[in-house]
Amino acid sequence: MSRSPGRKQENNKISRELFVLTYGALVAQLCKDYEKDEDVNTCLDRMGYGIGIRLIDDFLARSGIKKCRSYSETADMIAQVAFKMYLGVTPSVSCSNAAGNEFSLILDKNPLVDFVDELPAERASLCYCNLLCGVIRGALEMVHLAAEVTFLQDRLKGDAVTEIGITFLRKPEDRKHKR
Amino acid sequence: MSRSPGRKQENNKISRELFVLTYGALVAQLCKDYEKDEDVNTCLDRMGYGIGIRLIDDFLARSGIKKCRSYSETADMIAQVAFKMYLGVTPSVSCSNAAGNEFSLILDKNPLVDFVDELPAERASLCYCNLLCGVIRGALEMVHLAAEVTFLQDRLKGDAVTEIGITFLRKPEDRKHKR
Repeated sequence: MSRSPGRKQENNKISRELFVLTYGALVAQLCKDYEKDEDVNTCLDRMGYGIGIRLIDDFLARSGIKKCRSYSETADMIAQVAFKMYLGVTPSVSCSNAAGNEFSLILDKNPLVDFVDELPAERASLCYCNLLCGVIRGALEMVHLAAEVTFLQDRLKGDAVTEIGITFLRKPEDRKHKR
Repeated sequence: MSRSPGRKQENNKISRELFVLTYGALVAQLCKDYEKDEDVNTCLDRMGYGIGIRLIDDFLARSGIKKCRSYSETADMIAQVAFKMYLGVTPSVSCSNAAGNEFSLILDKNPLVDFVDELPAERASLCYCNLLCGVIRGALEMVHLAAEVTFLQDRLKGDAVTEIGITFLRKPEDRKHKR
């Protein structure tokens, strides 16, 4: 598996509707495959992880972004550059703890659910967009940042907004220095 | 299921890499689910059909295209407007029979396989992009055009180009008039 040469020079912008509908078909297939919502969520996260570790090269090449100097700057880049580039939206970012390693990405509007009204009653625990968490986790890991990424709120479940929580995990050497 | 209001006004352009990788995850999942390539192909086509019958509204609204006056014009619209809009590429079109109802869309480059080198040996009959055939078939059906859509050549299988064949099926009243 490799990328074709010369791809960078092309106009690679597309309308997102085909993507959104294809993603819906993927989730529907996993719901057929797995009875438990938790298993679908895990599968989506794992798939996303596999995508994230490959997408990071494209992101770094296309964005021209160099090393971020803080967790805060990293969270801003994810929201303002990566989400904009790959989903066409820009979540707002807030830091949610004093230690400065927990962040929330707040989406007023989630383009991935454009064609979805609500989850079926029997799928109440489904994290429909869990692929995104895996993508973020995988991409961060490739720039040596371990993180937990989960949905904290979801409009599909009746919450007012969709909120993705990112917790950067302290590196072993950070912990050592603190002791 | 419905679309959110106001979506048309937004910039809905996205980079296609996330889509291409997500599509790859979908095909990989179906290859896990079904042993036979034919079953994967059928499933992709059926999923695509479900997408096409929903995507057509978006396409007509966004493109502003009215009724096409011939099969030839329809084929051109698919290649020059729809492919460009949803996949960022423009296949060339040729009519392949005297009756004027068979067309080929030729893709020198297929963006959906950007991250794929070749099919695994045990998946030699897989039509990796078969979703596209279903999308075209479903969308055409919604504008009252019955068609058969299949891959005739595929670079993933060693062909020089990727070629999608579209055969518009005569309507019953056409046949009647001919008799």
